Amino acid sequence: MGNNEGLGKLYLIPIELGNVEVEQYQPQRTLELLGRLRYYVVENARTARRYLSRSVPGLDISSLTIYELDKHQGYSYPREEVMELLRQGEDVGVMSEAGCPGVADPGHRVVIDCHRAGMRVVPLVGPSSILLSLMASGFNGQYFTFYGYLPHDRASRRQQLLECQRRVLDKGETQIFIEAPYRNDQLIRELCDLLSPTLCLSVAVDLTTSEEEITTLPLSIWSKRLKGGLSYHKRPAIFLLGREDD
Amino acid sequence: MGNNEGLGKLYLIPIELGNVEVEQYQPQRTLELLGRLRYYVVENARTARRYLSRSVPGLDISSLTIYELDKHQGYSYPREEVMELLRQGEDVGVMSEAGCPGVADPGHRVVIDCHRAGMRVVPLVGPSSILLSLMASGFNGQYFTFYGYLPHDRASRRQQLLECQRRVLDKGETQIFIEAPYRNDQLIRELCDLLSPTLCLSVAVDLTTSEEEITTLPLSIWSKRLKGGLSYHKRPAIFLLGREDD
Repeated sequence: MGNNEGLGKLYLIPIELGNVEVEQYQPQRTLELLGRLRYYVVENARTARRYLSRSVPGLDISSLTIYELDKHQGYSYPREEVMELLRQGEDVGVMSEAGCPGVADPGHRVVIDCHRAGMRVVPLVGPSSILLSLMASGFNGQYFTFYGYLPHDRASRRQQLLECQRRVLDKGETQIFIEAPYRNDQLIRELCDLLSPTLCLSVAVDLTTSEEEITTLPLSIWSKRLKGGLSYHKRPAIFLLGREDD
Repeated sequence: MGNNEGLGKLYLIPIELGNVEVEQYQPQRTLELLGRLRYYVVENARTARRYLSRSVPGLDISSLTIYELDKHQGYSYPREEVMELLRQGEDVGVMSEAGCPGVADPGHRVVIDCHRAGMRVVPLVGPSSILLSLMASGFNGQYFTFYGYLPHDRASRRQQLLECQRRVLDKGETQIFIEAPYRNDQLIRELCDLLSPTLCLSVAVDLTTSEEEITTLPLSIWSKRLKGGLSYHKRPAIFLLGREDD
């Protein structure tokens, strides 16, 4: 609905999760788009430039206008300038530092502004650790919740994890969360100590890269593996609690 | 962990959501994989064959072995045969009828069996209506729940929707669900009648295709548009309730 003829479009561009060639995860049409776009709103201008020059051979990076989301100001960006470009019919791309803009990553403010101004928002296919790990966990994909980071505070964290367990056991709902990578091993230990040993944990590490490891096991076995020296220290990981249905 | 050298891999292959060219959503490496795989577990063999012959020019479809998930038997499949192939080092692909296998679609049983047998499960990047609509809604992507289909029963449905509203208002959690496409307009009307007019609804229709429409508006405005004749009748849609953060 709404007449958005003549206006620019806001393209939401997912990018790589780790060190892989662009043909592994980026459809050909998106690569063509990246060769064409002249305006971006991004989480970090320097890494966005580096990403674009690596992914699109021959691209003249100096011809691009790149706006940053200001993380110290609630991910604000030069709204008036960007909206004016769109009104003039220029297309604008949004990129975060990894994965999908707006999903466990900044970008949703730009999207809301575009909806309000009647601009077309076009989400592009690309890697999301949430979705890839959910597919590969084998857990219930009909009913799931993503929580982002667990609370840091010990009591709220404990309460949150017990609530997660209850939701898996009562309703079969898959529970998905993330953690700072230097605390991965600590988190797995915490899950083993706190929750039922029969509950299943899936950990997906270094998704889409040649180092990818995706493992779904009952907590009782994770506990043994930790004792045996298993470590995911500082590797990008995502965690899922769920039930193995038979 | 686990020694899976010499074993085959289970590839989870997302496919198109609607009528678009394969270069729009399928990375080059996935197209190469589709040219190489000889064994599949799929939701429907006939449409899988049709998909593969359309997407991979020159592929000899008759050389493929395609197993079906039996929806009348809880999506069972010839487990022993498929596991034996993987043990012998053959790679196997899993495809559903649209989008990502195992996410709001069958396939998770095969995945669980592979984890148990120590096979590597490799999720590939591709289109998911859940993820694309979440990115494009502008709603909270740090905290969201996907419910699948809403209950049919009037009372449980009402209760579920009021609970969704509470979770948006209390915690800013984005609520995502689907509906049979012939009931899209009815569902939007129901949401307008039951929930607060200031609550925001995002509807994403015909995602990834040239007919794509993604609209985020307060329910008060959806209500006016319905009266003005808006209809998404029989078009594939996904629904999100959320909050426009400022």
